[in-house]
Formats: sequence, C-alpha cells, structure tokens
Amino acid sequence: MSELIPGGLGVVRGLRSAGVSAGFRRDPARLDLALVVVPEGSTAAAVFTRNRFCAAPVSVSREHLAALRERDLGARAVVLNSGNANAATGAAGRATAEATAERAAALLGCSAEQVLVASTGVIGVPLPVEPFACGLPAAIAALSDGSGKDPEAALPAAQAILTTDTVPKQAAARFSLAQDDGTTQLYHVGGICKGSGMIAPDMATMLAVLATDASIGAEALDAALREAVRTSFNRVTVDSDSSTNDSVFLLATGASSTAEDRVLEKDAADWPLFVEALRLVCEDLARQIARDGEGASKLVTVRVSGAASDDDAQAAARAVADSPLVKTAIAGRDANWGRVAMALGKSGAVFSPEAVSIQIAGLEVFASGSPVAFSEEEALRRLVGYDEIVIAAQLGAGSAAATVWTCDLTHDYININADYRS
Amino acid sequence: MSELIPGGLGVVRGLRSAGVSAGFRRDPARLDLALVVVPEGSTAAAVFTRNRFCAAPVSVSREHLAALRERDLGARAVVLNSGNANAATGAAGRATAEATAERAAALLGCSAEQVLVASTGVIGVPLPVEPFACGLPAAIAALSDGSGKDPEAALPAAQAILTTDTVPKQAAARFSLAQDDGTTQLYHVGGICKGSGMIAPDMATMLAVLATDASIGAEALDAALREAVRTSFNRVTVDSDSSTNDSVFLLATGASSTAEDRVLEKDAADWPLFVEALRLVCEDLARQIARDGEGASKLVTVRVSGAASDDDAQAAARAVADSPLVKTAIAGRDANWGRVAMALGKSGAVFSPEAVSIQIAGLEVFASGSPVAFSEEEALRRLVGYDEIVIAAQLGAGSAAATVWTCDLTHDYININADYRS
Repeated sequence: MSELIPGGLGVVRGLRSAGVSAGFRRDPARLDLALVVVPEGSTAAAVFTRNRFCAAPVSVSREHLAALRERDLGARAVVLNSGNANAATGAAGRATAEATAERAAALLGCSAEQVLVASTGVIGVPLPVEPFACGLPAAIAALSDGSGKDPEAALPAAQAILTTDTVPKQAAARFSLAQDDGTTQLYHVGGICKGSGMIAPDMATMLAVLATDASIGAEALDAALREAVRTSFNRVTVDSDSSTNDSVFLLATGASSTAEDRVLEKDAADWPLFVEALRLVCEDLARQIARDGEGASKLVTVRVSGAASDDDAQAAARAVADSPLVKTAIAGRDANWGRVAMALGKSGAVFSPEAVSIQIAGLEVFASGSPVAFSEEEALRRLVGYDEIVIAAQLGAGSAAATVWTCDLTHDYININADYRS
Repeated sequence: MSELIPGGLGVVRGLRSAGVSAGFRRDPARLDLALVVVPEGSTAAAVFTRNRFCAAPVSVSREHLAALRERDLGARAVVLNSGNANAATGAAGRATAEATAERAAALLGCSAEQVLVASTGVIGVPLPVEPFACGLPAAIAALSDGSGKDPEAALPAAQAILTTDTVPKQAAARFSLAQDDGTTQLYHVGGICKGSGMIAPDMATMLAVLATDASIGAEALDAALREAVRTSFNRVTVDSDSSTNDSVFLLATGASSTAEDRVLEKDAADWPLFVEALRLVCEDLARQIARDGEGASKLVTVRVSGAASDDDAQAAARAVADSPLVKTAIAGRDANWGRVAMALGKSGAVFSPEAVSIQIAGLEVFASGSPVAFSEEEALRRLVGYDEIVIAAQLGAGSAAATVWTCDLTHDYININADYRS
C-alpha cells in the first residue's frame, strides 16, 4: 500500500537540504537559495518546460542530465534560487548558470555535471553570480542531517524557492517493498515545490524537487516521473509544459536503512507501489499549487468524464479550467453552468449537447442537455462555504475521464499582476 | 478605391432597420429588438460559431440559409434580440427561434426561411416568445426609409443588440464600380455589431449585420464574407468561432440608385474593391469590439511578423493577446516584455529566441534575443497616454505576419463577470 504522510523532502533518508538567504532578494530576511544534496550513486531524472524561451538553468540542467546518463554517473545536488529566473538573459545568463553548478561542485567535491540548477523569479534581468559565492557555503553548512527522521527538515528549502506563493508546499508518502531476505522495508517519497501565477502562467515558474530513498535506476526513474507529472503537475492550469523555467527533478538516494538495498526494477511486481507513492505526492503538490494560485480564494477541481477519448477529456477539462468567465463566476460565488457548458462546447471535444450533464459543488445544474432547477440559495451556501469547488461534467460520448485543477479569478490576481515590476 | 466613411448600416441603399424596446430586458427604456429588412431579391451569406453548444437561433438561421440556397431564394430580414441568448434551452428554445422567424415572415409577407434570427444575452434561460408579438410590429412601424441618405439610420438597431457593450458599434465604407454604360457608380458597405466579454468569450456573443448595396450573387457573397471575417472578427480574441451565438450576416441589396444594377462577379477586375470595402468595415468593427472589451481601458494590437508560416504568425499573436499576464501588465502600464517573450515561446510557433525582437508602444525593448535598455519613464508615459497599445514582435523565422486585437485585463473585468447573475 502507498499512502500520504505528513512532511516533505525531509522524510527521504540520505537527502540533505537547506534554505538560506543569499541576497537575490532585497528583503534580507527572505530565504532565496535552496540546496538539495544526495549521496554518491544517487540517480536522477527531470522534466523541463517546452517553452522556446527556456531559461539558462533549464538548458544547463538538461545538458548535465544527458552527460550523467552518458557517463552512467549519479547526480549529487540541485541548486535553486528564487528572485530571478535567469530567463531571456542571453550568454551572460548561461555563464551564470554554469558557474553556479561549477561552484557547488567544487564545494561538494563532485563534477559540475552532477549538479542540477533551477531559477525562478523575474525575467530578463541578469542573475548576479555573487550571491552564490557566499550563499552556497552557507547552505552547505546548514544542510539537514539526511536521517529521514524529521519530516519538516526540508521546510527551509521549500521556503527558499517561493515567489508569489503565500505558503510553502511539501508532500510525502510511504510504501513498503518485500526484500530478498523475506523482510519488508519501508520507503519514502518526498517533495517540495513552488507554484506560480495561475491561469496562463506563461512566465510564472513551477519548480519541484522530488526524491525517494528507494534504489532505482535512472531510466526507470525517468519513466515513473513522466507518468506522474502527466496526471499531476501537467493537469494544473499552470501549463507546466510551457513556462520558461518549469523544472521537476526526481532523485533516488537508495539510502534506506538496510546496507544493501534492493534495486527496484520497472518490471517488478511491486513497482506500482513506488509509482503510486510518487503519484500521490505529485498530485498533492499540484493541488497545493492550484489552491495557492495568485489571488485564489478557492481550489477549483474540474472533472470531465464520459469523453470519447483521453485527449477529448483533457481538452474539455482544460477549456473549463482555463476559462476566465468560469473562474470569475466562481470568484463571484455564482453557479453559472452556462459558462461551463460553453467552455465544453468550444473545447473541440466531440459530444452531443443533449447527452451532457453538469454538477457544480455537488449540485446538479444541467442534465441531459437541459437546465435543472436548483436552489440558488443552496448553491450560494456551498460556493461560499466549500474550500474546494468541484465542477463535474459528463459528456455522454464515451468512457474517458480527466481531472484538471485550477483556482478562481479574483481582484487579487489583477492586483498582483498589474503592479509595476518595481 | 475603397475607403471608410462615417456611419453604419444606414449608408446601404435599400436596407431598412429599426431598434425597439420589446421587453426582453427589465429596463423598459433599453432597446432590445433589432430588425433589418432588405428588398425582394437580396442575397445573403453568414458565418456562425463552431461551438458544439450552438444556440437555437444559430441552428435555425443555418438551416434557413441552406434552404434559401437550395431554392435560389433571397433573404428578406434579420431579427435580433438582446437580453437572452436562447442557448442551452433545448426544444423550447428551438421552437421560439422558429416562431420568431415565422411571425416576422407573416408580417413581411415572405417565407420563414427568408428570415434569419440571432439572439444574445444570458444562457440557459427560456426565451419568451411574447415580446416578439408586440415588438415585431413596432419594429416594422419604426423601420428607416432605406434611402441610404442617413448614415446614422441604423443606430437604434445597433443599440438594440448591445449587452455589456458600453457603446454602439457601426462602420461604413464606399467603393465605386465602372458600369456597362461607361459611368462610375458609388456603392457602400455598412455594418453594425455588438462585442462581448473579452478574453475568452466562450459564451459572450459577437453579432454583426453587414450589408452592401451592390448586387452580388450569394456564392460570391459567401466567399467574400469568409475571407473578411478571417482577418477581422476572427482576429479579435473574442474567439468568434467558438462562442454559442456568434453570427455574422452579410446582405446584398443590389439597391443602388440605378434601376438595372450590374451584378458584381468574383472574377471581375473590380471585385477586390468590394472585398476591400468589406474588409475595412469588418476590421473597423473588430477593433471597436476589442476596444470596448469588458473592463478594457486600452485597445491592444498584437502584430507578429517574420513568422515561418501564417499559422505560426497567428498562433504567436494569439498567445500574446490571450495571455492574462500580458493583459494585466498593460492594465498596470508596465512594458513587461518578458511576459510577451514567454507568450511567444509557448505558442508553438517555430523560431530561434536569438532572432526575436519586441517593441511595446513603439519602444524597442528586446532585440535579437537580448533585452534593450529603454526609458521606463518614457514607456510609462506612452502606456498611460496612448489609447491603442501596439505590441509588435519579429520572430526572424520567415515572412508571415498576423495581427490580433485584444484589450487589457482590469479590475472592471472581474467586477462585470464575478457579479451574481441576478
């Protein structure tokens, strides 16, 4: 069985982390440099943004991972800074990202390729290299003990990567695997992430560092990560596949309490236990991102079922979740199913309007293509009172389903994003 | 030569119109029923939404047009109401749309197929048929004279189709054609339209009635309309191809002052003069819609050039125009080119970041892939002072170009759309 447990990256044995204030931000009290260190022999996988304007750290990390794969080397660290995205910064930005990895490598006694880097914050402003010079030694000095005993051990790292997020984001899960000697051993998956401006976060960044203390080969790790991201981070309307800096890292330390770890293979009978633990952590983090979207007052979960295909289900759910008219309706506590119907209609998904039903916050508002009389008072009560608003639609065209998470669109979104950068 | 002139549908000879208060809205002073009548023998074309939840009047008008085409009959009238979209209203909605056409036909002495219908307003509420009973005779009594001499003659009709629009929208153009007898004759194109909630107006409606007093066959008219819509209404981020009720009608009265009109054929040397006049009117109306977008304080014109293909150019321009982060930046008077770059990057258009240049309000902010130092003060002055903000991007990947119009995203958008429906 795989289940969520309290905590974050701190539950992962062998993983040490720190968050320090390095001076990327004006506020000296704010943490802005995170460091995650794993033991020699750890494996790594990552998925990155597909935006053509991808940031320098994304290019560098991508190349480092490829080099590790080629040389059959493990990763040793991830360095993440907030306050500056090092995106659209040209050759200078590239040099800074490389210098960051080199400096961390020198301090940790590994090769530069074994260090992965990520940045988040403002675009198009040169990222200074100086804060890393003092910040990295300070972070190393502050590293947690890697015992896996303090679930909150990675909280400073989680805080150091935040931008417009209002709360740090962590999640953890555990699963057990039978060992060769007949015993059963507990393993963990932990994660930290930062969310972003919501809705069309074409420049807001989603960063996540995930890790497990199971021992897993790089190739299998990569497959598990891609599958987990597909139904979690990629189902938040943060469009994690399209911003400049989006990066999700997954490390496997293999540092469980037994000396000789069993290497978990993809074709093992209990492989799904790890995949499920990873999925649980990713989905929990993804929901935290949506809930903490810029200006959000509600988490909005859009569930489309009865679609003719997976693509249709996702397109329909995304169309609803991306619709500013739906999102402002939720902000206004209005069960405006007409906007939901119309978003479904424009999504390109194939269905017959007569077969469609819609529920908002558990109230049936549209059934088999016709409006259903419902208590506006009860709808208002739910939309005001519920913390998570579920918009569910059955298309009646097949059996595919998809869930997408988003948030409502409020005045605070405008406040946050219409401010001058200064 | 084709050129814009003051006025709207009123310039079109032979076309009579009226706008009356029929009782679709609570405010008895507000006009809510528009009637446009053209002479026997007029031709008609239309383009409609492609939303699967298309409204009843869209289905009915589509069928009527097909019937006219089959029977080689001309259209006689367009009936438009505001205050209720007659969308997602099931069989009852369909019956009301048909009854509307039948009643108008009886009053005008034509067949029901010769009447086209359109509705705009709230979704999912039954459209009462009663207001048409009194409203249509009143509208007929109020019809303008069809002389083409009063450019403002269709203003009441333009007013009667508005919903959240703050101003009526009209445009007109003229062009001249050489006649068989060697003389040159002036012709006109006029139009009225209503805009809509902007940004993702998946339920907000765009309605337009266009007309010319040239004599043009239905097939040629249809081709001209599709081409004109493609680069005008379909380039406003009103997504006119996806809302429930979007309809654009084009009528040709052939009622110029000469008794025997020359029929303008598609292969005629001066056909482009008509097409250009139609395009001018459509583009002018489209810009009016963007400028009057819900909560808009600025018209935003996004011009992408140097794209590898037309599709790329349009996708890139749309990505910028649809980005809430770009739109809130303009609302905040912030020349935040990073958001523009990132929207281009996520659009799917093929280009190399190093080749990209961006100007905002005429200021170069990004050139050949690197930030350009510019005066923030001057940028602020322009963003505050200019009524139309042009965002221009050169992708350096080819020679295709596209223009898309939108507006900024302000607090008023939230005010308008987060209100309860009541």
